[in-house]
Amino acid sequence: MFDTIAVVGATGAVGTIILELLETRRFPVTRIKFLASHRSAGKEIRFADSAYSVEELTPEAFDGVDLAVSSTPDDVAGEFIPEAVRRGCVVVDESGYWRMDPKVPLVIPEVNAESIRRHQGIISSPNCSTTQMVLAMKPLHEAGRIRRVVVSTYQATSGAGLPGSRDLENGTRAQLAGEDYQYEEFAYPIAFNCIPQIGSPKHKGYTSEEMKMVYETQKIFEDDSIQVCPTCVRVPVSNCHSESILVETEKKITVEEARELFAATPGIAVMDDVDNKVYPMPVNCDRRDEVFIGRIREDLSCPNGLAFWCVSDNLRKGAATNAVQIAEWLVENSQ
Amino acid sequence: MFDTIAVVGATGAVGTIILELLETRRFPVTRIKFLASHRSAGKEIRFADSAYSVEELTPEAFDGVDLAVSSTPDDVAGEFIPEAVRRGCVVVDESGYWRMDPKVPLVIPEVNAESIRRHQGIISSPNCSTTQMVLAMKPLHEAGRIRRVVVSTYQATSGAGLPGSRDLENGTRAQLAGEDYQYEEFAYPIAFNCIPQIGSPKHKGYTSEEMKMVYETQKIFEDDSIQVCPTCVRVPVSNCHSESILVETEKKITVEEARELFAATPGIAVMDDVDNKVYPMPVNCDRRDEVFIGRIREDLSCPNGLAFWCVSDNLRKGAATNAVQIAEWLVENSQ
Repeated sequence: MFDTIAVVGATGAVGTIILELLETRRFPVTRIKFLASHRSAGKEIRFADSAYSVEELTPEAFDGVDLAVSSTPDDVAGEFIPEAVRRGCVVVDESGYWRMDPKVPLVIPEVNAESIRRHQGIISSPNCSTTQMVLAMKPLHEAGRIRRVVVSTYQATSGAGLPGSRDLENGTRAQLAGEDYQYEEFAYPIAFNCIPQIGSPKHKGYTSEEMKMVYETQKIFEDDSIQVCPTCVRVPVSNCHSESILVETEKKITVEEARELFAATPGIAVMDDVDNKVYPMPVNCDRRDEVFIGRIREDLSCPNGLAFWCVSDNLRKGAATNAVQIAEWLVENSQ
Repeated sequence: MFDTIAVVGATGAVGTIILELLETRRFPVTRIKFLASHRSAGKEIRFADSAYSVEELTPEAFDGVDLAVSSTPDDVAGEFIPEAVRRGCVVVDESGYWRMDPKVPLVIPEVNAESIRRHQGIISSPNCSTTQMVLAMKPLHEAGRIRRVVVSTYQATSGAGLPGSRDLENGTRAQLAGEDYQYEEFAYPIAFNCIPQIGSPKHKGYTSEEMKMVYETQKIFEDDSIQVCPTCVRVPVSNCHSESILVETEKKITVEEARELFAATPGIAVMDDVDNKVYPMPVNCDRRDEVFIGRIREDLSCPNGLAFWCVSDNLRKGAATNAVQIAEWLVENSQ
């Protein structure tokens, strides 16, 4: 049913990992094409021992395409995805553009794969900071019903795309050399600094990145009564987002119960032994597909609270891996 | 009354700033001496246009000293400060050793200067991560009675002393050059990484650094009913700690009220206008004495909650500045 596949945004930070995952996870491909902006059209891409030429993203490029996995800026997704759907293509979209559309399922396969069945051509993959938190919340919510989440993020520069990664590396080199550097992506130096703003001001002093963590969480759990208070911060880390998370549940969950619940959840890996300095960090979660959890402890400030530390590769489970998993679910459930 | 002053640990990261502050704040000095470990004894120090030779820290070095400002490792403070007190010296101690001793006032002058009057020879200055949070809490606690604090820290490597600073610089250089580097202070690479452990495991999965934020906060406010849930994280920032803070108060405080309360508190500076990208960051708070507050907003998850972002130079208000302020209070109130 999904004979012809397209990867949209194939030359971007997430697109290149989507390619890698389609190969390594042996995604069933009969025909494949790679689409990107005019600027990247004509570039050569190697996939499964063959060479492909990147084609320009146009409405007509979707003619005959059955399934697209797309990672582009929001405005591009807004313009081209309806053109793809009109041509009978099902699109798994990694951008932010369609996520809150009521007709579009917003999916983390380990959490709400069944909602994919309701799609009308588009399935959205959540924002990177949301995905790892919501997957971590899932077993706790099922066991104890989460009422409230307080989260502070430590987000890597790769979340701001290739320009963000360049800024961290070049800005750090310049600062160590005592030279000036003109930042391309960030409003302030990110080298040896923390910037407490990701995205634009959105709602009551919260930024767009922060409000994604509120709205997307409620949509995925289909429960607007889950209260989320987020603080999103960019830190000088190249890749992998970290999150300090506190959840309050209706029914108390002990540390031991939480550790068992996390360990039993597909997609989650527990690294939790502070006595032996074992906990997830960007350096030990890079290029891994799981959501890693450590520092699990009872909240000292609330009887039904549980605190933990959560790290995941924002380009993988936070983006490419989750989108490819949705595509895999579509293939498996379409025979 | 305080004719002869000693600076203990004069060659350390905090000690050198104590020297600078005594000069720039025109601390009244008749005689001054500089004490440090055997290794640093004999080094030359310049102070107020004169040259001094660093003396070795011994019990006898406190003979005739009236007031000491001390910044040393905990074990050194445990050993030598009683010797100083026995010789009639009053000691302002920046180390962690004496802070929780019931006979020792733990002081942030803007918060609880009056408690200095109860001292029996030692006055402690709080831990850096505590000081900036508690000063920020002070006006909110007075206006609305804080019941609970959830805090996640983004702590600079200078908090781990000169070896911590060297590790960040040399580790980052090595990583950018693709070379190995043997970290001296940190158990894991700090370059482009976050380490969710500061100090040693202490209580129910919380670290010693985290429990300082609980115990010291309760001691300073003389209120054990204030609940604190801390997560302390080392980030690749050279200097200035950042904190994502959420407080819950008995009486609701609006964003506008909070902004006015902060602005009216000595020692606090408000930088709060996200629409114009104005908020405190390590890069704009370095070498400043204030506690800076921004991103003030109502908690989206609790009616009486208030979230904000707090940055301060951990070597200054978090250490040297606070200790010198205590010494100044002693001088002013001893005539």
